[in-house]
Amino acid sequence: MERELLNVWDYERAAAERLEEGPYSYFAGGANDELTLAENVAAYRRWLIRPRVLVDVSETSTATTVLGHELSMPILIAPVAFQRVVHPEGEVAMARAAGAAGTVMCLSMMATSTWDQIAATEAPRWFQLYVPSDPAVAAEVVSGAAEAGFSALVLTVDAPVLGRRERDHRTGFSIDHLLGLEWLQNANVTPRTAFHSISPSVTWADVERFASLSGLPVVLKGVVTAEDARLACENGAAAVVVSNHGGRQLDGVAATIDVLPEVAEAVDGRIEVLVDGGIRRGSDVVKALALGARAVLVGRPPLWGLAVAGEHGAAHVLELLRAELHLALQLTGCRSPAEVTRAHVWRGVRITTRRRERRPSP
Amino acid sequence: MERELLNVWDYERAAAERLEEGPYSYFAGGANDELTLAENVAAYRRWLIRPRVLVDVSETSTATTVLGHELSMPILIAPVAFQRVVHPEGEVAMARAAGAAGTVMCLSMMATSTWDQIAATEAPRWFQLYVPSDPAVAAEVVSGAAEAGFSALVLTVDAPVLGRRERDHRTGFSIDHLLGLEWLQNANVTPRTAFHSISPSVTWADVERFASLSGLPVVLKGVVTAEDARLACENGAAAVVVSNHGGRQLDGVAATIDVLPEVAEAVDGRIEVLVDGGIRRGSDVVKALALGARAVLVGRPPLWGLAVAGEHGAAHVLELLRAELHLALQLTGCRSPAEVTRAHVWRGVRITTRRRERRPSP
Amino acid sequence: MERELLNVWDYERAAAERLEEGPYSYFAGGANDELTLAENVAAYRRWLIRPRVLVDVSETSTATTVLGHELSMPILIAPVAFQRVVHPEGEVAMARAAGAAGTVMCLSMMATSTWDQIAATEAPRWFQLYVPSDPAVAAEVVSGAAEAGFSALVLTVDAPVLGRRERDHRTGFSIDHLLGLEWLQNANVTPRTAFHSISPSVTWADVERFASLSGLPVVLKGVVTAEDARLACENGAAAVVVSNHGGRQLDGVAATIDVLPEVAEAVDGRIEVLVDGGIRRGSDVVKALALGARAVLVGRPPLWGLAVAGEHGAAHVLELLRAELHLALQLTGCRSPAEVTRAHVWRGVRITTRRRERRPSP
Amino acid sequence: MERELLNVWDYERAAAERLEEGPYSYFAGGANDELTLAENVAAYRRWLIRPRVLVDVSETSTATTVLGHELSMPILIAPVAFQRVVHPEGEVAMARAAGAAGTVMCLSMMATSTWDQIAATEAPRWFQLYVPSDPAVAAEVVSGAAEAGFSALVLTVDAPVLGRRERDHRTGFSIDHLLGLEWLQNANVTPRTAFHSISPSVTWADVERFASLSGLPVVLKGVVTAEDARLACENGAAAVVVSNHGGRQLDGVAATIDVLPEVAEAVDGRIEVLVDGGIRRGSDVVKALALGARAVLVGRPPLWGLAVAGEHGAAHVLELLRAELHLALQLTGCRSPAEVTRAHVWRGVRITTRRRERRPSP
Repeated sequence: MERELLNVWDYERAAAERLEEGPYSYFAGGANDELTLAENVAAYRRWLIRPRVLVDVSETSTATTVLGHELSMPILIAPVAFQRVVHPEGEVAMARAAGAAGTVMCLSMMATSTWDQIAATEAPRWFQLYVPSDPAVAAEVVSGAAEAGFSALVLTVDAPVLGRRERDHRTGFSIDHLLGLEWLQNANVTPRTAFHSISPSVTWADVERFASLSGLPVVLKGVVTAEDARLACENGAAAVVVSNHGGRQLDGVAATIDVLPEVAEAVDGRIEVLVDGGIRRGSDVVKALALGARAVLVGRPPLWGLAVAGEHGAAHVLELLRAELHLALQLTGCRSPAEVTRAHVWRGVRITTRRRERRPSP
Repeated sequence: MERELLNVWDYERAAAERLEEGPYSYFAGGANDELTLAENVAAYRRWLIRPRVLVDVSETSTATTVLGHELSMPILIAPVAFQRVVHPEGEVAMARAAGAAGTVMCLSMMATSTWDQIAATEAPRWFQLYVPSDPAVAAEVVSGAAEAGFSALVLTVDAPVLGRRERDHRTGFSIDHLLGLEWLQNANVTPRTAFHSISPSVTWADVERFASLSGLPVVLKGVVTAEDARLACENGAAAVVVSNHGGRQLDGVAATIDVLPEVAEAVDGRIEVLVDGGIRRGSDVVKALALGARAVLVGRPPLWGLAVAGEHGAAHVLELLRAELHLALQLTGCRSPAEVTRAHVWRGVRITTRRRERRPSP
Repeated sequence: MERELLNVWDYERAAAERLEEGPYSYFAGGANDELTLAENVAAYRRWLIRPRVLVDVSETSTATTVLGHELSMPILIAPVAFQRVVHPEGEVAMARAAGAAGTVMCLSMMATSTWDQIAATEAPRWFQLYVPSDPAVAAEVVSGAAEAGFSALVLTVDAPVLGRRERDHRTGFSIDHLLGLEWLQNANVTPRTAFHSISPSVTWADVERFASLSGLPVVLKGVVTAEDARLACENGAAAVVVSNHGGRQLDGVAATIDVLPEVAEAVDGRIEVLVDGGIRRGSDVVKALALGARAVLVGRPPLWGLAVAGEHGAAHVLELLRAELHLALQLTGCRSPAEVTRAHVWRGVRITTRRRERRPSP
Repeated sequence: MERELLNVWDYERAAAERLEEGPYSYFAGGANDELTLAENVAAYRRWLIRPRVLVDVSETSTATTVLGHELSMPILIAPVAFQRVVHPEGEVAMARAAGAAGTVMCLSMMATSTWDQIAATEAPRWFQLYVPSDPAVAAEVVSGAAEAGFSALVLTVDAPVLGRRERDHRTGFSIDHLLGLEWLQNANVTPRTAFHSISPSVTWADVERFASLSGLPVVLKGVVTAEDARLACENGAAAVVVSNHGGRQLDGVAATIDVLPEVAEAVDGRIEVLVDGGIRRGSDVVKALALGARAVLVGRPPLWGLAVAGEHGAAHVLELLRAELHLALQLTGCRSPAEVTRAHVWRGVRITTRRRERRPSP
């Protein structure tokens, strides 16, 4: 069977066949009319690569660093909730796949595995946080995560309240179903706690507070404007993730790859810029690097791998993306992620204005 | 059944199933090739929201004022003719739904209910006027409406003659059918009177005349150019509605949301700017506010609610839109309609021109 | 049956059902991939009308003049070959319909009726000419046409050789089939003569030669660039028709409505500018007028009318277009073709750059 | 049967019916999502021709010169590997068709025919080279090709490594299947040798080295940026081919016709510019000439001809393209390829800004 799984699309189709409608739609779906969900993917097709030739690419590497971590590739695992819904080993299998691939596992605050279980995988790991409204809870979660070996806090800033996902209303899939599941009883942060603790009152002042509380670099996930990118730099963020929550929060927001340029330009190298949403090919990673990203995060792609074949499936998806990226770098004439520049992508047609007339008008 | 009606699209589908072809097409259709009808909806998808993050949105309200009315939301009921065609309680049920939702009911001059019936609902109400060619009739209608408690005159200016709606020719649906209906006998302005009185001779001078006659603020419905927006300001209008009559008059006119910016810029805050046409989501309202509208009017959405479940259906549609708007405001980082600015929407891709070369050319 | 024929599209469908595949495809088809054929129609949808309101349109007229002719509307009959193929009365019925509608009939040089037959209809008439390579034949045709009461020469300039229409190859439809038909024996210019006489050697110098030979104003049909528009003015043309031969000559040329602005701007009022191709609605005529055309020519629309119901069908199509134009003028706020200006159309979205911030950034 | 084959599309369909899925997909397919494959064709439709009229085109010729060769038309045969897979006479039949058509045959290094076989056809011929990593092999191949009468070296520069073509993985089609075939045993350069010798280390310095080794002009195939176009001029290339390897290498690269302008502008006449990819019509050749190409190369079109009817099929495809080009030149008002200028194409709509108001605003 797996012989046929050549790319991320194949894994998505295979996962759709294996999962029941409710769980599949929960992970595949987006907010309202799912315009942003579709745009995230479609927008990559509108950015075109400008490959350079006759570059010696015999010594090409996908390795990079993100927040000082040495990674095998500029592709991290995005935080995705409730991974045991698609596979019994859930986040643990995903973390093992990440570790084996030499990249970072971002654990969702809505995880269905404990911190100790993730720590046991020894994967480099970041912890995604929705801000608890109770400061005591917030302090407890944050310091606990730091002690459990997470090396960065990924603060989700595009969810002061939860988006409306109509697919879940139609399939009847609900978080309440999950809460009865055995493996949630011992989670460090149960989904019920997490959802109840989502605070609509978080502001820029909280960024430095969480940095102090945790002693960890704070990554702001959900910045999509130049204005907020500048505020992130000024308020102590270590990095931003250009993200629209995979199209699951506010429908009608631009594709992340389309707003990456304005964020990268506003940040101007002061902090690192990451991007997620819509990445399905290694060449998409090249485009993101060219438009100013240090690295990308992928959520659904390895999740479909997990759904299809557990750790092995997630690992295979990561390897497919890594191999595609390696090839795309070579064919773009770049020997490393660092060599990709803004000049390696363009958009639309450049129309020359100078007309070389070869004959006079009749 | 209603459990499945999650949004305006659902209501439109349900209404299409319940109504017969003739009445459904009369309300759903537009002029000629229905290009403008489709554009009104499609254009909203091309405007993208730029949400701001880390704003405390715990105290968010959709309340606003329009022409001094305190409304629960910047969403009013657009004038729609012959509402008893889709439900026996017609405009009365719609007015009750509007009143319950804390917003304004615009009564069509082609209403199938009397002014007294509407007055009994105690909903805040405006009266939509086609200009009668006979000055005596005009004076009678206008002063009658003022006495009946309507607090503004909505003067339709995009219908000096009626547009051609070919769907009605095909289904055989005709106003004449309506005229035999019992509940039209006692209308304050019968459709026959109204249609016969549509005058192709109205000019800017009439705006102040109607304001004087009625003692009411005059809202011009159907302004779609900067030129006419300036003339509206100079000729005593209290507000304009950027409208193309729901795509039912001149086919080939731009979507209203696409011309709203030029109208808002020309008006430059002198009077209030409203917009109708194509609004199907709360996030569409955010886009309209960002592009300069004080509020929007919705016609077909609550009408489908009325067709499906009477007052309750119309009220549910209004509540869906209000809840969607509330959520969209929060996710945009705005605590009220007043906080939405031009910077909260954009269109297309901003291409950075500065190229940060990370390596010299080979 | 005719009750259902509400617009030009209906007539096209009805004609497609009545005619055999070969003849239908001959008239409906275009060159090669038929890109230009489709573009001619599609392009009108991309130009949007900017209607003005509160204009007294009670006294609206579609009347205009073209080359000094007083016409009931700015819509002329384009030259179309072999009209007896679709109806036994052919060009004669078409001329009667044109005369009844108060407009000009352009007779194709490839007509299947004689000049005398057309003269008998008393319709105002122009004669379309492919330039015969033999000067003697050219002189004979041109002076004969002038004597037969044609009041202008329409010189086709986009056909130095004939375009390739693959549909005809597939259906097996060929001009040779026509040549055996009885009603061609007495034509003033037989198609065989006409086709054989198409000269690839005609140049600008010939324009004044034909004007002199005929004593008639010369209209150049097939000008689509500013360069040639200027040359037309300088070489004695009385008018140009912006035309791509209905998409039947060079595939890949722009839609005529899209190049009309550059031609009109280059001509700058020195001579009259007409346009054909893709007009299916009265509102299309408004767009053409706004973009600089004095009038339009319609070919296929009345031909479908002719195919469906002879003179009566052609007349009905003309009346539909006239009524649509009348309504479109009123709804655009114009009392006559002369009142339509460049400001009555636009294209795409105008994005305001000024941002009215209602609150300071957080 | 052949009566129905009117254009390149017909040949493509016919070849798809005759060939088995594996071989057909190998030649028809592209890299990854085949976006660039589709774009190459689609992009031609977005460039529009601006034909000039009243030019005497009675003496029109498609003849031109490329690198000093006098050719009957600006259309060369692109290098395509393994042509015997589609027809037993393979490259030999193709070379005969090229010779008969008066144009150049580019022999792929992955050819399934020997140099002597090609030499026997006496067609003007160029040799396409993937750079062998072993300098000795490189020298041998290059000098051998020169001795065998090839008059130019076409150095492929967009394939330092091979692109990923997922269609082949799905059909199971593989080069290894070919290696067992008898007619490969005696090839001058076997595919195994060729593939194994593809070097990822080639740089600009190698261009002059190969020119020296061979004594032949070096044509760089795969240049798609202005930067590399300038480097080609500075490093001794005789010409560049704007190419993305028929969409088979890096998916996500722009259509070749869309980047041709920037390459032509950068080269600025210093060397010749060719283009391949997506050409299916003679009018596409006119567009390429207008955007700065000296000539085009066609790969799949004559290959489908070869698959359908051997040498005769390939020759027919070339004749169709030549005839279409001849007609397109005449209808564009050009008497030769040299008369085609940048002013003969445009893109999109030119919007006049000057508004001629015919009446004052009301």
